[in-house]
Amino acid sequence: MIKPGDQLPSLRKLSQELEISLLTVRKAYQLLQKSGLIVIQSGKGAFVRGVTKRSSKVLNNFSWQDELNVNITRSQYSLNRDRKYYDFSQAILFPRLLPNQFLAQEMQSLLRTNELVLATYGPIQGDRELRMELSSYLQREQGIKAEPHEIMITSGAQQGIDLIAQTLLKPGDTVIVESPCYGAAIDVFTNKGVNVISIELDEEGIQSDLVEEVCQKIKPSLLYVNPSFQNPTGILMSRQRRKELVDLAELYHFFIVEDDSFGEIYFDDISVPPPIKTFDKNGHVLFLKGFSKTLAPGLRIGLLYAQGSVFDWLYAVKALMDIGSPLLTQKAVLAFLRTERMKHHMEKLRTALQLRRDHASDLLSSLSESVQFQVPKGGFNLWLKLPQKVNTFGLLKKAQEHNICFLPGEACFVHKPLHAYIRISYSLLSDTDLNTGLQRLNTILSAEI
Amino acid sequence: MIKPGDQLPSLRKLSQELEISLLTVRKAYQLLQKSGLIVIQSGKGAFVRGVTKRSSKVLNNFSWQDELNVNITRSQYSLNRDRKYYDFSQAILFPRLLPNQFLAQEMQSLLRTNELVLATYGPIQGDRELRMELSSYLQREQGIKAEPHEIMITSGAQQGIDLIAQTLLKPGDTVIVESPCYGAAIDVFTNKGVNVISIELDEEGIQSDLVEEVCQKIKPSLLYVNPSFQNPTGILMSRQRRKELVDLAELYHFFIVEDDSFGEIYFDDISVPPPIKTFDKNGHVLFLKGFSKTLAPGLRIGLLYAQGSVFDWLYAVKALMDIGSPLLTQKAVLAFLRTERMKHHMEKLRTALQLRRDHASDLLSSLSESVQFQVPKGGFNLWLKLPQKVNTFGLLKKAQEHNICFLPGEACFVHKPLHAYIRISYSLLSDTDLNTGLQRLNTILSAEI
Repeated sequence: MIKPGDQLPSLRKLSQELEISLLTVRKAYQLLQKSGLIVIQSGKGAFVRGVTKRSSKVLNNFSWQDELNVNITRSQYSLNRDRKYYDFSQAILFPRLLPNQFLAQEMQSLLRTNELVLATYGPIQGDRELRMELSSYLQREQGIKAEPHEIMITSGAQQGIDLIAQTLLKPGDTVIVESPCYGAAIDVFTNKGVNVISIELDEEGIQSDLVEEVCQKIKPSLLYVNPSFQNPTGILMSRQRRKELVDLAELYHFFIVEDDSFGEIYFDDISVPPPIKTFDKNGHVLFLKGFSKTLAPGLRIGLLYAQGSVFDWLYAVKALMDIGSPLLTQKAVLAFLRTERMKHHMEKLRTALQLRRDHASDLLSSLSESVQFQVPKGGFNLWLKLPQKVNTFGLLKKAQEHNICFLPGEACFVHKPLHAYIRISYSLLSDTDLNTGLQRLNTILSAEI
Repeated sequence: MIKPGDQLPSLRKLSQELEISLLTVRKAYQLLQKSGLIVIQSGKGAFVRGVTKRSSKVLNNFSWQDELNVNITRSQYSLNRDRKYYDFSQAILFPRLLPNQFLAQEMQSLLRTNELVLATYGPIQGDRELRMELSSYLQREQGIKAEPHEIMITSGAQQGIDLIAQTLLKPGDTVIVESPCYGAAIDVFTNKGVNVISIELDEEGIQSDLVEEVCQKIKPSLLYVNPSFQNPTGILMSRQRRKELVDLAELYHFFIVEDDSFGEIYFDDISVPPPIKTFDKNGHVLFLKGFSKTLAPGLRIGLLYAQGSVFDWLYAVKALMDIGSPLLTQKAVLAFLRTERMKHHMEKLRTALQLRRDHASDLLSSLSESVQFQVPKGGFNLWLKLPQKVNTFGLLKKAQEHNICFLPGEACFVHKPLHAYIRISYSLLSDTDLNTGLQRLNTILSAEI
């Protein structure tokens, strides 16, 4: 005898007992519910309806999702990154340092004369004119001889990293990175289920003899490096080290991903060694360059230069990722590269950032000797080594109370580091805010160490 | 005694014999080469230099790459798709049907008043104003109640598919698709190393009883469908079928990817059933909508609406894919959605496409009865079933000689289909070219069947 309030058998149980499909049982229960005889409560079951009217409001229940095994092991972007007014956490340029007005004008004129630029998919590989211009640019500015057909336009260097990982990596493969390393690159590799091995840097960059030691034990699929003004440390890899990495790639048949987002932001008129790609003869180096750091992050434009069959594989995957980057934003970058403006802009940028670096270094040098850092010769970041006792997340919390944020060093390591580090980006704030923010940070740091 | 022309031991052999690192042996050989004593030929080895000067020009050698096992099993975009003037191969709108002038003006005014739009990364999830507007749009036009925080902006629906696959699929997982199916979706899933099972459509859409049969044997991770004006067949899934799919997803704990790129392009004033997402209570449906088919492919804007933890996972992966889509192109879509223009534009679009469909159907109906097709009630495509003997690739080759191209049906199947099919998109050509092209195609088809 079934009474009001009684629970009916589960769908699965009834389906098994009666040997009918789950969907059929479900339909029967839904008919009973519709006719008012039973109430179905999501996640609980089906109940015989009582005489008193019960609320049958069904709440959403997403909990089944939490039992899934998904491909997210780490992502620095999904940390609760509570941005503050004095934001030292992002390696992004102060907007007023960018050629916004010129870019805006160029885009306006482009839209006036060629309204169809919005109406067509561009080529998957990227706009041909832009690739031709980038080919000249790379040759002129960095001595890289890339043919336009060997260049692919990506949505920033970040998409280049993800594209390469999607194309080449399988779970269980090995990837070598620098220690410390750009955090979002570690995230991409880790989420692909690969074994990420990090190798310490010295003042010349990643230690190639240690890379070879790894190679002798296990063949890596790829090695990811920022040779020039490495993110986060600012270290400039020596010419010798660059050549050795290509030699190792030849010997052990792996790819080098050369992420050159900061290579053109050098200070003190120092000479930057040629990109690793210039030493590569046999297609071992996949060269990435983003324009988000130098031109306009809002445009999301980067380039990938690769040679050999790997180019075709990357092309096939890029097509399936997004059928190509937007044409309009590519045309805007084209307009800029074509003029003399890029050259002048880069000169202005180097000067402005060098002043910021000087300012930030001076202010932080006044701290106790237990805060150590190298003055970087380029890039956007200062990498501070703090006494071991400091808890960087605790420090961040205190800083946030004073409207300040920075990047805890942990984001840049594969395993928990032995020391405490924080990354300070001096690129994003106005000069005044940089000054005020760093003085506040100084006070907070001094209290902790 | 070593003589000119003799080959030296390989690096690896010498390294093993002398128990020194490969890099050291390489350096020694390089010194010998520099001093002119030996010649190193890439891929061949090191040779003692003869008295006569030999050309030591080293050619690039990319062949090592071809031994790698990469993640490209299939990609319709890497087929040699030789585009022709009469292009029926692409489901893209004729550019003059798009609101280019308005979009161009809006972007110009946006750039005039807010030049900083180029200078900042937008939010990873997408511009907040656009998400708010899309939330109203979905509610108004399709009865979908999506909160702005549950919407993510992607670079077209294609990125949505790839994002979902990257986040949720592991090699060996099972994905169910329609048979036939949008080819680039099959490509994405296949390249992730999953088991893709395709289920035949009937006139109501994918056959849910066959889906359940699969589920009883193996739990799928996701089911990918185009419920409205399916690509390539144009089939409109019934309301009943939509509900059954949600029931199955509940019972067997999988996600449904509802790709709704064509849902608003309906003809003959027919009524389109509500999106599958409207029947979903517990976060089983991931709803994708691209604006490339209706507004501007050059903008590369789409949306993904998801509920529950899966939203956070997708967010984390989107961040690592490209740190968010460009802000400028998002603002352009916003301008359009905010006005009454979208409504008028869609009405105009439906009328224009319906005329094209009528025209194309009429012309192709004059063919022999051995060419079969259903007149679609929406969308961009006619799906022709040809006699079994026809080789669609051979047919394409002949068509290309007459400056015509189309999509061979094979691109839309997981396994080789039993019949011959081709997809004719009537969306891209001008009215005149559509007429001329179809008449030519008719002649070619008639000769083949």
